[in-house]
Amino acid sequence: MQRSWVAGANAPGGDFPVANLPYGVFSTAGSGPRCGVAIGDRVLDLAAMTEAGLLGRDAGEWGFHEAGINRFMAAGPAAWAWLRRRLTDLLAEDGTPELRDDPARCEQALISMDDARNHLPFRVAGYTDFYAGRQHALNSGSILRGPANALTPNWSHIPIGYNGRASTVVVSGTPLRRPMGQVRDDDADGPEMVACRRLDIEVEFGAVVALPTEMGQNLSVAEAWEHLFGFVLMNDWSARDIQRWESVPLGPFQAKAFGTTISPWVVTRAALEPFRRGAPERDNPLLPYLHEPADYFFDLTLEAHLTPSNGNASRIVSTNTRHLYYSAPQLLAHHAVGGCRMETGDLLGSGTISGPERQTFGCLMEQSWGGRDPIRLEQGGSRTFLEDGDSVTLTGWGQLEGHRIGFGRCEGTILPALQQIGSGKR
Amino acid sequence: MQRSWVAGANAPGGDFPVANLPYGVFSTAGSGPRCGVAIGDRVLDLAAMTEAGLLGRDAGEWGFHEAGINRFMAAGPAAWAWLRRRLTDLLAEDGTPELRDDPARCEQALISMDDARNHLPFRVAGYTDFYAGRQHALNSGSILRGPANALTPNWSHIPIGYNGRASTVVVSGTPLRRPMGQVRDDDADGPEMVACRRLDIEVEFGAVVALPTEMGQNLSVAEAWEHLFGFVLMNDWSARDIQRWESVPLGPFQAKAFGTTISPWVVTRAALEPFRRGAPERDNPLLPYLHEPADYFFDLTLEAHLTPSNGNASRIVSTNTRHLYYSAPQLLAHHAVGGCRMETGDLLGSGTISGPERQTFGCLMEQSWGGRDPIRLEQGGSRTFLEDGDSVTLTGWGQLEGHRIGFGRCEGTILPALQQIGSGKR
Repeated sequence: MQRSWVAGANAPGGDFPVANLPYGVFSTAGSGPRCGVAIGDRVLDLAAMTEAGLLGRDAGEWGFHEAGINRFMAAGPAAWAWLRRRLTDLLAEDGTPELRDDPARCEQALISMDDARNHLPFRVAGYTDFYAGRQHALNSGSILRGPANALTPNWSHIPIGYNGRASTVVVSGTPLRRPMGQVRDDDADGPEMVACRRLDIEVEFGAVVALPTEMGQNLSVAEAWEHLFGFVLMNDWSARDIQRWESVPLGPFQAKAFGTTISPWVVTRAALEPFRRGAPERDNPLLPYLHEPADYFFDLTLEAHLTPSNGNASRIVSTNTRHLYYSAPQLLAHHAVGGCRMETGDLLGSGTISGPERQTFGCLMEQSWGGRDPIRLEQGGSRTFLEDGDSVTLTGWGQLEGHRIGFGRCEGTILPALQQIGSGKR
Repeated sequence: MQRSWVAGANAPGGDFPVANLPYGVFSTAGSGPRCGVAIGDRVLDLAAMTEAGLLGRDAGEWGFHEAGINRFMAAGPAAWAWLRRRLTDLLAEDGTPELRDDPARCEQALISMDDARNHLPFRVAGYTDFYAGRQHALNSGSILRGPANALTPNWSHIPIGYNGRASTVVVSGTPLRRPMGQVRDDDADGPEMVACRRLDIEVEFGAVVALPTEMGQNLSVAEAWEHLFGFVLMNDWSARDIQRWESVPLGPFQAKAFGTTISPWVVTRAALEPFRRGAPERDNPLLPYLHEPADYFFDLTLEAHLTPSNGNASRIVSTNTRHLYYSAPQLLAHHAVGGCRMETGDLLGSGTISGPERQTFGCLMEQSWGGRDPIRLEQGGSRTFLEDGDSVTLTGWGQLEGHRIGFGRCEGTILPALQQIGSGKR
């Protein structure tokens, strides 16, 4: 592995070696949100580096003083490649001493992660959630409709997706309030308004769109790949009881609208190159607009840990992105094929990722098989769905010999529901 | 009626008397997009009026030089009421002569609509489409599932809605490209990729959210009413064949993503006061969080005209907003109840508005009863669904003695599909 002179960057279990260099937004006690790159246990302040003239002439155009990497993403692949080379040169042991040998500059530009607060890494333009995991579709279909009709007839032909709510996509660390909503029990006369009783996680892989399209245009899968900047971990919190009552015929709505958590660092396509894999076996041939001229899947481990308010963390999910059936550029190509305008900062969720065994199922509904079979926590206790005070943390990484390329943490803690409707002021 | 000294403002069939004063964004040959108010056949340039000091001290905070009325909407009800009084005073025959008696100022600030190009009146933050018309839900349910199961069990209890695609909400006059998409015929072995064969309109009423909520908060219906700024006409273009294949189980997606057209002027709640009406008879009691302490429905006529590329306009729809079952503040209260963060510039579509008779059905799928019974155009020819070159124009108004409060035109013309996938460059 390539080594860095920055503290923590060569730690074997660390997420952020110099081969990673993911982009995010952070603030410090003295200074507001700006762009940075994670390296070891430090954040490299890209606004300070730009001001110091260390990132070249074009960096002034990339908006690193803003609270979002959108302008840099819109700058395109040549800019991304140039900056990756430059940052590698600045941060690698065998690179240029320009930063390394300037203690005052290091003091100013390399901030301890303990002193940095993360913000959303990009302004989320649109948020679309897909359903691209075959085992998840099979499992949820079996639970809801029985095994004979588990997969709908369209599933193996078309990437099923729906528009999510961009305004409640939040960064790791943001608390989530248990939603109120309409539910109807099977034996009830009518619906009631309750605090969600079946609060769930969904372990997902989120793709971040960098380059826009015009309304009425479209993209091939190969072009779609070039339009993607990178990836984040994503927890698509879900209220299963609300979802069940509201979803026919127009799909999930309030069951998904109360919050979606993403990890703070966007890991670039370049950093994930070593983990690219080919497509899974297909149930049937795909239509030509979904054909893939290259390998667009990844071999990345994803885990979820649950920590009760009064307990220790238990691993509840260990799965892998290779369980997905549709790749991110397929999702984007499908999204754009009808002329939908795609924007810089669009977030495309993969849908829940589940493998063949229970431990690899990416949500509690599957793990507890619709609440019928509680999962036992490693550290004691059990769960069918989430309780107030529970904290769920996603992690993810690609493993190389001696080091990993990681995504950091994607965490959220459940607050009790707000029972009162309205401010009560009037 | 109150009369204005501005050209065209007192015309009996005109949309924009001084009692209306709707807000929008326009540009001229010499100058970029800025905010304006429609009055007669003129646009009052709010940026110029602000610079001239005619709109009071606070107007500098309202962002009228920007391409969107978002900042003014966020300023809140006191600002809206103040400016409505001030504009009425400036534009009414019996008001202040400050503008009227200053020909140079009039020349600069009152622009002929013929010289003004409309833009989106507000930056669309989120776009949510509901399904709040009972007869539309009955008709589409009957066409798709048969009359016995027309209304799903949830329909009369919960405002069914789904997140739409905000990036392709466009202003009247923007051409719409017929989408490509996956469809599957009943007798086909598998799906195919085609240009949509069942391209439809949906006549809707769009509510515009002015005041935001925090994530995790909620709103009573009465509070939701105060959060709304005004309303627009909305045509939610729909690809029925694509919708049919993709919609189970997660709802419409690409069938609705290629474009949604809104009218250029946001008509305020204040202007619509004379048309407020009470709720329709309920199928069953609603849950308390949806109770309405006042009249939040409207008596407004909505029409659609279809103009073939080589023909004259035929009226194809004449309906009324009183056919809606859920009011706009009910939709907003439901949207926020689970903690979804609402934003300034959110657009909430009512869903298709249909009354009891065929002429009042708000989309072609209903009018042609699933394509089985073509509608005859007044000017010759017939349609089941839209053909290339067809132009559809929505209009809408509330009628008072001697004048109306109108919405202007919401128009779009269908371009042929783009058959090639990708740019072909690589």
